[in-house]
Amino acid sequence: MPQTIQMFGIEGMPEVRAGDDLAALIVEAAKRQKLAIQDGDILVVTQKVVSKAEGRVVRLSAVEPSPLALRWAEAYGRDPRHVEVILRESRRIIRMERGIIVSETRHGFKCANAGVDASNLPEEGTVSLLPEDPDASAERIRSGVRARLGAEVAVVVSDTFGRPWREGATNVAVGVAGLNPLKDYRGGTDPYGRPLRTTVIAVADELAAAAELATNKVTRVPVALIRGYDYQQTEQAGARALIRPPEQDLFP
Amino acid sequence: MPQTIQMFGIEGMPEVRAGDDLAALIVEAAKRQKLAIQDGDILVVTQKVVSKAEGRVVRLSAVEPSPLALRWAEAYGRDPRHVEVILRESRRIIRMERGIIVSETRHGFKCANAGVDASNLPEEGTVSLLPEDPDASAERIRSGVRARLGAEVAVVVSDTFGRPWREGATNVAVGVAGLNPLKDYRGGTDPYGRPLRTTVIAVADELAAAAELATNKVTRVPVALIRGYDYQQTEQAGARALIRPPEQDLFP
Repeated sequence: MPQTIQMFGIEGMPEVRAGDDLAALIVEAAKRQKLAIQDGDILVVTQKVVSKAEGRVVRLSAVEPSPLALRWAEAYGRDPRHVEVILRESRRIIRMERGIIVSETRHGFKCANAGVDASNLPEEGTVSLLPEDPDASAERIRSGVRARLGAEVAVVVSDTFGRPWREGATNVAVGVAGLNPLKDYRGGTDPYGRPLRTTVIAVADELAAAAELATNKVTRVPVALIRGYDYQQTEQAGARALIRPPEQDLFP
Repeated sequence: MPQTIQMFGIEGMPEVRAGDDLAALIVEAAKRQKLAIQDGDILVVTQKVVSKAEGRVVRLSAVEPSPLALRWAEAYGRDPRHVEVILRESRRIIRMERGIIVSETRHGFKCANAGVDASNLPEEGTVSLLPEDPDASAERIRSGVRARLGAEVAVVVSDTFGRPWREGATNVAVGVAGLNPLKDYRGGTDPYGRPLRTTVIAVADELAAAAELATNKVTRVPVALIRGYDYQQTEQAGARALIRPPEQDLFP
């Protein structure tokens, strides 16, 4: 019998509002579709609903754009207040070219627009920010599921990031709780007894990418459940472990 | 009933040798584990077995290292003939620092070591190269499966690539046949009727990443089958469509 991994999209989630208990909403939606969340399951939750539940939504009418934001927005036909929020969410600008801003977020993630995004928000004139501490967000969902069901799950908070060199974006992990985001083969050998070249795999990013196939930007399926993947349980490491320190990066 | 995607690791593949018919080996291994390959299934095949079947393995004793390869190998304690093969498989060096070579392969992929790799090869003193034309490799497996089973599948050839900014490597698509590697949301709207920010998703890379969770570097599971993902069938696009042209890249 082959190793089988299953992925389910969790449907029928209500519109998420600031202050909502996301673990409760996920548990109830899963129950409605007769999906019993179990020990060892992995919940992959897209960033947008996490940010909404945590009130990480900014009304643009309250934002005063800086001169840099005004100039950039004018040059590329964007909303200067939206650009201002991107700058505020950044601790360092990596590229600012052809209308694209790639920056390092306050968490250390490197991505376009510092994770600031106007899509999938019910109110016009608002943008969402990344969670303040996405690893803590993941942990809250994890402990909320445990409190309700007694099930020991892992949680990945995912967002859609572009990347250098390759067309198209993929989902990656911005928050992780309960599993080691990196699988380390160092010291391991191949079936012929020789050391493995690629020593560390970013399994949390692979889980986020896999879950994107089961969730859907258009039809409101913001959570996927992955079952049957034998991950390394840990309380220690969050998605922060996926951030390469600039001093070790050939592309800082 | 939620949308369910299933992934199976295809076990019990024999050692693959130059000239082997990979489609036949996959079909037989799947049959032995009572897995009936169906229309709409996606086979994700790791690069190493494709390269072996295609004889893309180089004996280092036949390689004459260049002065650059000799100097670099000496500085970082590597085999100069291995370094020479990396240089030969590159059309451009992007970074050559701290013992790491990041280059653009002859196909246009940007990765470490030009995809040249000494692991998972039965013979000591050999290294494997990427397939000559990985999209054609994927297509051969696809038509081989069709010829044997009548099943219309899609095929992704995957390899493990590192990336800037994030720790750990993930599997990505280097060859694609039968599915559109990019899912294009351009012109689409979110549930609130507003345009989507992230417009193009690299689903072939997400499929490769997902499959890595079901395959295994150590225990010889080089192929995964993904079932239940509703992809866009096409004869047109290969993994070449995932290569961002340097002139459109902020990180050329």
